[in-house]
Amino acid sequence: MNENRMTIDLLICADTLLTCNSQWQSFSDGAVAVKDGVIVAVGEKKALQAQYAAAETRDLGKRVLMPGLVNSHTHVPMNLLRGLSDDLRLDVWLLGYIMPVERQFVTPEMCELGTALACAEMIRSGVTTFADMYYFEDVVAKTTASAGLRALACESILKFPSPDAASWEDSLAFTRDYLQKWQNHPLIVPGIAPHAPYTTTAEILQACSELALEFNAPLQIHLAETEFEVQNCRKEHGMPVIPWVKKNRILEAKTLAAHCVWVDEDEIKRMAQAGVGVLHNPTSNLKLGSGVAPIARMLDLGVNVGIGTDGAASNNDLDMFEEMRLAALVAKGWGRNPTALPAQQVVGMATRMGAASIHMGQLTGSLEVGKRADMIAVDLTGVHNSPTWQRNGGNAYAQLVYSAKSTDVTDVMVNGKWLMCNHQLLTLDEKALLQEAESFARKVDHFLIEREQSVFNKLVAIGSTIEQEYYEVQAKLPIENPKGIIAKLTSSEQITIQPNRYTHYRQYDTYYHFSAETEILRIRSDEKLDEKGIPVSERTRLTLIGPSSEREEAGGILVSRSRFLAQGTHSLRFYREYFRPDRVSEVEKDRKRWYVVFKGIEFAVNVDEISRPALGAYLEVKCRTWSKRDAKDKAHAAAELLQVLGLTVGNNLGKDYVDLVEGQVL
Amino acid sequence: MNENRMTIDLLICADTLLTCNSQWQSFSDGAVAVKDGVIVAVGEKKALQAQYAAAETRDLGKRVLMPGLVNSHTHVPMNLLRGLSDDLRLDVWLLGYIMPVERQFVTPEMCELGTALACAEMIRSGVTTFADMYYFEDVVAKTTASAGLRALACESILKFPSPDAASWEDSLAFTRDYLQKWQNHPLIVPGIAPHAPYTTTAEILQACSELALEFNAPLQIHLAETEFEVQNCRKEHGMPVIPWVKKNRILEAKTLAAHCVWVDEDEIKRMAQAGVGVLHNPTSNLKLGSGVAPIARMLDLGVNVGIGTDGAASNNDLDMFEEMRLAALVAKGWGRNPTALPAQQVVGMATRMGAASIHMGQLTGSLEVGKRADMIAVDLTGVHNSPTWQRNGGNAYAQLVYSAKSTDVTDVMVNGKWLMCNHQLLTLDEKALLQEAESFARKVDHFLIEREQSVFNKLVAIGSTIEQEYYEVQAKLPIENPKGIIAKLTSSEQITIQPNRYTHYRQYDTYYHFSAETEILRIRSDEKLDEKGIPVSERTRLTLIGPSSEREEAGGILVSRSRFLAQGTHSLRFYREYFRPDRVSEVEKDRKRWYVVFKGIEFAVNVDEISRPALGAYLEVKCRTWSKRDAKDKAHAAAELLQVLGLTVGNNLGKDYVDLVEGQVL
Repeated sequence: MNENRMTIDLLICADTLLTCNSQWQSFSDGAVAVKDGVIVAVGEKKALQAQYAAAETRDLGKRVLMPGLVNSHTHVPMNLLRGLSDDLRLDVWLLGYIMPVERQFVTPEMCELGTALACAEMIRSGVTTFADMYYFEDVVAKTTASAGLRALACESILKFPSPDAASWEDSLAFTRDYLQKWQNHPLIVPGIAPHAPYTTTAEILQACSELALEFNAPLQIHLAETEFEVQNCRKEHGMPVIPWVKKNRILEAKTLAAHCVWVDEDEIKRMAQAGVGVLHNPTSNLKLGSGVAPIARMLDLGVNVGIGTDGAASNNDLDMFEEMRLAALVAKGWGRNPTALPAQQVVGMATRMGAASIHMGQLTGSLEVGKRADMIAVDLTGVHNSPTWQRNGGNAYAQLVYSAKSTDVTDVMVNGKWLMCNHQLLTLDEKALLQEAESFARKVDHFLIEREQSVFNKLVAIGSTIEQEYYEVQAKLPIENPKGIIAKLTSSEQITIQPNRYTHYRQYDTYYHFSAETEILRIRSDEKLDEKGIPVSERTRLTLIGPSSEREEAGGILVSRSRFLAQGTHSLRFYREYFRPDRVSEVEKDRKRWYVVFKGIEFAVNVDEISRPALGAYLEVKCRTWSKRDAKDKAHAAAELLQVLGLTVGNNLGKDYVDLVEGQVL
Repeated sequence: MNENRMTIDLLICADTLLTCNSQWQSFSDGAVAVKDGVIVAVGEKKALQAQYAAAETRDLGKRVLMPGLVNSHTHVPMNLLRGLSDDLRLDVWLLGYIMPVERQFVTPEMCELGTALACAEMIRSGVTTFADMYYFEDVVAKTTASAGLRALACESILKFPSPDAASWEDSLAFTRDYLQKWQNHPLIVPGIAPHAPYTTTAEILQACSELALEFNAPLQIHLAETEFEVQNCRKEHGMPVIPWVKKNRILEAKTLAAHCVWVDEDEIKRMAQAGVGVLHNPTSNLKLGSGVAPIARMLDLGVNVGIGTDGAASNNDLDMFEEMRLAALVAKGWGRNPTALPAQQVVGMATRMGAASIHMGQLTGSLEVGKRADMIAVDLTGVHNSPTWQRNGGNAYAQLVYSAKSTDVTDVMVNGKWLMCNHQLLTLDEKALLQEAESFARKVDHFLIEREQSVFNKLVAIGSTIEQEYYEVQAKLPIENPKGIIAKLTSSEQITIQPNRYTHYRQYDTYYHFSAETEILRIRSDEKLDEKGIPVSERTRLTLIGPSSEREEAGGILVSRSRFLAQGTHSLRFYREYFRPDRVSEVEKDRKRWYVVFKGIEFAVNVDEISRPALGAYLEVKCRTWSKRDAKDKAHAAAELLQVLGLTVGNNLGKDYVDLVEGQVL
């Protein structure tokens, strides 16, 4: 043998070698020489064999050797929340399921298990580097390093309390220590992640940017994911999302921005100019109905675009082969242009450009001298990839994007170390992890089953609720002549009208009925009207109304129990999908309300004109109390009040308006 | 043992059994009893064990047992054309690659090999039934039956000669025999496939419908795949696609329509009313830039929608798991509604409703008593599917659609016979098939490499070309005063103007230059103008212009060789993507042409005013001849003619306009 050969650790050979360098060089019978985890040569197998004496040689034969894939945006601990809830609106999914479960279950232990599971899944599917954003990122970093993968691990900062910090100031202080601790790690690049413009403040954004600049650390953020976000940003700040974050110094750091679905030409140019990497998550953007990012245009304008899976809770997997295919397909389908995003460009976005998009292009993303030895072998000989073509340098890129599956990945190396050989994971105990995941899932299942046993628990789960059990005394009588009744009410000597408390409303009531529940949920939107009948303010409240069986009459007056009241901060559609009622009914009415004192008791007197359904006019006399016995006494006073107004108690409707309407069975 | 138990062939048990029946019944510890290839019972394992004595029992344990998937639209022999060309426009892909290769290579042997390969791929990915449309469908049927899969195999009918018929009448006669021959086969349902409205005629559509009705055979057709198709249909027939085919009796048969991307509300209603099944091919529709079919609306209006992969040449695989996921994702993303097409509904489209969409719902698509025993086992315990949830009856449907991979399919049974057990194919020799596929690919590679060696061969390959080598004598001189020259030309006594042959054009010339070729391809669009300068007609021609090195001068006159002329029936974009020139240049001019006789020789005299680039006015004197020697004689006469017009031969440009423009390097 040639004694002048340079000694290296490893020579990896393959019939087909794709470097994914900027010239898209490839080799038949190629090889990569590795020393100390770094690529020292790439080229023809024979030439490298002549030049280097390798401690170990591995010939991958017909498998294609290429750089490992870069998953540019994910939330690895969320692997434990995969499939928790699907086919829901973004707000129902996030506020109704993901966040309540996160509040309860995100701990360092959960993050460790979720990260290990995600690493196993990503190694199996050929990912060698990923960019993460979650809580307890120190644990994510430690677990990832132990699994042997490379990552940009970014600690989340939010304006709310988060699972790992009581305030954003705490979070920022922790992040400073975290950035310090992980500097110069061979596998981990630590980063900072102000979650999104709508979950932070101008102050937080600026503080994050300053910290990132101080440590020269990458800054990851979700930007312009939904049209709603952009609309709100315009409303609140008078500008779209990119100018807003630019104003708050976010584009000054080594920034990577996930989603960017709703950005305009000018915003794309600003990002290109600032060197912001865009992280394209086509599955997540489609699955949550957010839309499709204008990727072809971004590439034209020189933005580095990476491809990401997003978290497993919204994908539902971390499969970069699916993500590459989808990136190509949506670009073609949306733009109605089958030549958009050709296969080679997509492979580039998942390798070299993907690494550049997360500001790790100097380390990984292509098989080039000086970069870390991050590479994978893919077996393209399966029946789903057959046949292969040899003209024009073969069709490996098209196979990788359009027909290969992640399960075609056979071998994975990161930093010169094998993490998978012939489909066998070498750094993780998959079986043990899967068992732990099932135990975790049982706990979450239990929590959600408990919660979903009743509408009451579901109402508590989404927060902002006030429990207030009370009894309501209520008489409701049809009236022919509302004006006459109002005249009697305001002129009677036995009745004292409370000054300045008259109100006039337009009320929209939606009732949810549940076949398995006796309670009814009422969502009431009140529009307060001024003297001219113009709406001046609006509010929405949710009330859980006790079952009819619990209602009692006293002297012809209804006494019912209303247990629960919540501020309605979400949309009707949110509630409908979250509570999944079996029947919905609606009542719309004009309500004039006086507070009166009669026999020393305060009553509310409502004159209601019900327009939908057209039920005519009713008079309602109401009062509330905390004791059932007191309620009965007050019921008798209410009956007397009605007599004063010239109404017969015998005409009392004895039920609620909702009982008069049929509603729509869903 | 209980001696009263009924004897059956097989009892298949699994921890989770999804029937996919109309009630979406599922069983924990479920079982299916099979006798003579038919399902005789579905239910609790214990109950079935008590009721039946099985010759064989197979317990699939943790694997999910469910009906096999229905691939509702494909072209199985095209598996051999997978990846032949990608990222191209539909017309370049079809007319430039697929059709020329099909003309050359589609034989019964090719169809047999392609079908066997497709069957291997589909068995591996859990497909038990598919609907096919191709040529030599008798061979497709035979090969599929031998692989043990169930298929609706439809013979294609086109107005052009096809690989298996010289005329559509021949094709129809063959199809009649074919329908007769395969009636009542246990696995194959024979059908008829008028290819598409734009590749057939009213007469063909009607004849196909009549034949389908006579045999009660399903009729498969491509409908409204592209916007272009609909625009053309409106132009030619004055109505959109569905009314046009309805008028031609296509909706009277048991019809299944692939694609239906560009159908309106009224057309969907007509299809629903006629019981037409729609075959949704999301990958193919995106990849070719056709668009997205309004599937959610079709389902609302009661159409049976199946999911299909289309052929492997446009997908590029036959993976129904990818297709299910994509169907869900595009419905959500396009409609910006994450609740559209939930997982269970998508599984339905790939099973029970898929079978109904291809009019085979009575045979397969769900695990129900009386249907054939077509079922698969799927292992959902892998790390990419973890964890599982137990509330709400578990999340198996969401796993199948959003996280499972086709490689999770472990076992496949059709008609009571195992085709795959534990990932091992039992009816096909995959290794031998893959080798044969590679030999086939080498032949196609050779054909295409040969063809693509020269622009000339590529021009021949797309047809409608006339080879006509001739010599052109050409003098071209700059002129200051076009009107003065025209006055001289039309008043000279030595020159006879040919009557009624004066023409006035607006000419748009596009030149393709190839760095590896000496020839230049000119694509000329002529707009013929009337006396007022209004365009009255237009035509496009392609001319392959001989290399400059072959041009010679004779007495200051250029003699060049133009080898080739073709009618330009495609768009400029088609040619650009098909020929892939390295440089493109354009010349736009106004041309007035007279035919004159001078010294007994007919010349064309052109007065050209070049507007793009602004090169000014030129006079051109031209004539053509078949002999080089004659060309030189005529060159001298041309020089004399120029003198009569008062022009100096020395000013002859000596080159073509294209040589004066730089063009755009691509």
